[in-house]
Order: sequence, then C-alpha cells, then structure tokens
Amino acid sequence: MTIIITAFERSPDGGKGLARDTRVRWALEEVNQPYEVRAVSFRAMKEPAHLALHPFGQIPTYENGDLALFETGSIVFHIAQRHAGLLPDDANARARAITWMFAALNTVEPPILELVTAKILEGDKSWSEERMPLKADRIRDRLKQLSVRLGDAEWLDGAFSAGDLMMVSVLLRLKASGILDEFRNLSAYVARGKARPAYKRAFDAQLALNNGKPAP
Amino acid sequence: MTIIITAFERSPDGGKGLARDTRVRWALEEVNQPYEVRAVSFRAMKEPAHLALHPFGQIPTYENGDLALFETGSIVFHIAQRHAGLLPDDANARARAITWMFAALNTVEPPILELVTAKILEGDKSWSEERMPLKADRIRDRLKQLSVRLGDAEWLDGAFSAGDLMMVSVLLRLKASGILDEFRNLSAYVARGKARPAYKRAFDAQLALNNGKPAP
Repeated sequence: MTIIITAFERSPDGGKGLARDTRVRWALEEVNQPYEVRAVSFRAMKEPAHLALHPFGQIPTYENGDLALFETGSIVFHIAQRHAGLLPDDANARARAITWMFAALNTVEPPILELVTAKILEGDKSWSEERMPLKADRIRDRLKQLSVRLGDAEWLDGAFSAGDLMMVSVLLRLKASGILDEFRNLSAYVARGKARPAYKRAFDAQLALNNGKPAP
Repeated sequence: MTIIITAFERSPDGGKGLARDTRVRWALEEVNQPYEVRAVSFRAMKEPAHLALHPFGQIPTYENGDLALFETGSIVFHIAQRHAGLLPDDANARARAITWMFAALNTVEPPILELVTAKILEGDKSWSEERMPLKADRIRDRLKQLSVRLGDAEWLDGAFSAGDLMMVSVLLRLKASGILDEFRNLSAYVARGKARPAYKRAFDAQLALNNGKPAP
C-alpha cells in the first residue's frame, strides 16, 4: 500500500522546510519508506474532503490503505513504531525517546510558536515592540535547560531517534531569530540533524514542490 | 515495582485539578494501577535532584524501577501502552486514539495555554485588554472544529481512550473562561469525562494533597 501525505501547495515559508510535512518526510526517509505527496491549497484545506482527513484543516495528513491519521507527532510516531530506525528496541530507551518527542512538541515548541505567531498576527500592534523581548526570554529559559541536558552528547538519549528528529525540527524554527546561535551545543546539534542524508532528501523534496512558487 | 509520580507540594490552582499530575493520576486510575506521590516544592523543582528527573524543572514525573520519564503526554502514553483500558487493541483504532492525544496537546491546548499564561504574566500590561479577545477567538476557532468532529458522539473515536482523557483534561482548563459553555456538545463531553469514577478518584486524591493549603 502506498503511503500518501499532504503538504501545502505553496508553503508559507516558500520552501525553507519549516512546514510540518518536512518532519513527516524526514521520518519516512530515515526508515526508507517511499511515499507520495498530495499538495493542498489553502482553500482546499478548509473544504469537507480535507476536513474529513484533518478536523482542524491543516497539513500534514497520512494515509495508508484504510488508515488515515493527522497531527505530525502522531504520524511520525506511527512511522517510527512500524519501521526500524527511529526508536530503540530496548523498552526503557524507547519510552525515553518518545518522551523527547512529546518534550519537543509540548515544552520547547509552544514558546517558539508564540513568538512566530505573534510576529505574524500582532506584528503591527502597538504592544508588539515591548512584548517580543518577553517572548524571546521565555524561549531562552527553555533552551538553557535543554542545553544543560544535552551537554556534549551527540543526541538527546543515546542513538538518534524520533525524539531528536522532532527536537531538531522544532529548533530549526528559531533560525531567523538568532536565538539558537546563543547556544553553541544546540546549534551544533541542529547542524548534525540537518547533515543527515535523510533530512537532506526530505528538505530537497519539499523544496522541489515549492520551487518557482513564491511564498503567498 | 511501585510507580512513583511527582506533583506540586502546593498546586498553583489550590486543588482545582488543573495541574498536570491529575492527568497521570486519572490514567493510572483508569487502568487500576496503584501509585505513590512525591510532593515537590517550587524550590525543589529547580534543584539538581529534580532536574535529573525532569530537565525542564516541572511536574509530573514518573518512576518505575529503573525507568524515569517526564512529559505528561509521554507518561500517559506509557501507562496506556502497558496496561489495558486506555487504547483499543485494533492497530488502526489505536493509532487514531494516539492521534487524539497529540491533537489535544499540540493543537487544542496551545491557544488555551496562551490565554492562561497571558492572564498570569501580562494581565497588568497596557495591551492586555485589547489582546485577550484575540486570544479567546483563536480558541473558539479550534473548538468550533472540534465540536463539528465530535458531533453527537460520546467519545472522539469509538470507546473512551487516552485521547479522550487528554482532550477532556485540556478542555477543563477553559472552565473559568466560560468559552467551553458556548459549545453544548463539548461541555457535555467534558461532563462525561468528569463523571468517570477513575477521574473522580484522581481528582479527590490531588485535592487531598492540596487540602488545607491555600494557593501560593
């Protein structure tokens, strides 16, 4: 059965790889599973056919035979559970790798997304200039803790896992802000993630879809 | 081996059950697993012993023999995977239930937390009055979509699952705002969750810990 995922017809980032389909592509590349992509326009995302797949009208989605999933975290976890390469075999190590997936999505990403959405949705508001530094400091607090835990290790808990895939993807969102550069070990960690052949294939594939299409 | 979780020595909500240990207690009650609670003060949460368990200095944590986990989502998932009662046996239904766990934590909770933290951290700022309604509308957009998907169903996908446990827990945070009351089927859904004997036992246990201790 063919795996089919959805992605933006035109990614809001114009192909920088920050749209969430890149995370799913990366996971599929790590486990060497072929997949097809169905591009979805912003209008189609809010129409009944897509809402049947994704009740919140977003991308990515995942279809494989009679299984349809949404939510990036759930899709990456599903891929990691079905195919070797993204979760350790040892039960305890596996539970810890899954913990890092949740930590990336629920503890590290929310303050980062708050900064990103505040820039997009409230950048023109009177309070924006005073408020942004508060948001940036909340991110720094989290990164300090993450930096301490990572230390000199290559990955968060032993071998590269779906937890690292998710954490690197989340931290990549900080590129433009310059905040990531304040933490040398985290910058190097993200660079190691980006250097993986599977990440490069995923990045190139999403870029090819967006190529020649300027950001809307 | 005894399961040990951590909880606030004094919950910021004074025992309303919104601290995240309630979610873990609820999961353990649903699968009939006994557990012990170690109460942690705000000071101790930032000290090395606790940071070794939870790199971001929060509660809850989960210990069982030589396994130590953090992140509520990961802990609830671990409990659900090891003990019958929170995830369906059918592989596809199981993947969908896990999807709802991620959806609760990553799609529905973030705008709710933004409203809550904005009230706490920015309630005295000049922009607060103008900004709050924007945040509330973002929550409404999500709840509209969730309400449509739930429809007249009892739970999100067949039988009660860890996905419902997490979604009900997330929606409970909206009680004070009145926003939940605007969606009749979601209010009834939350009421069904709260009526479960396992939820009641979890709620009573966290209340007992907080009883007689005013919110700090």
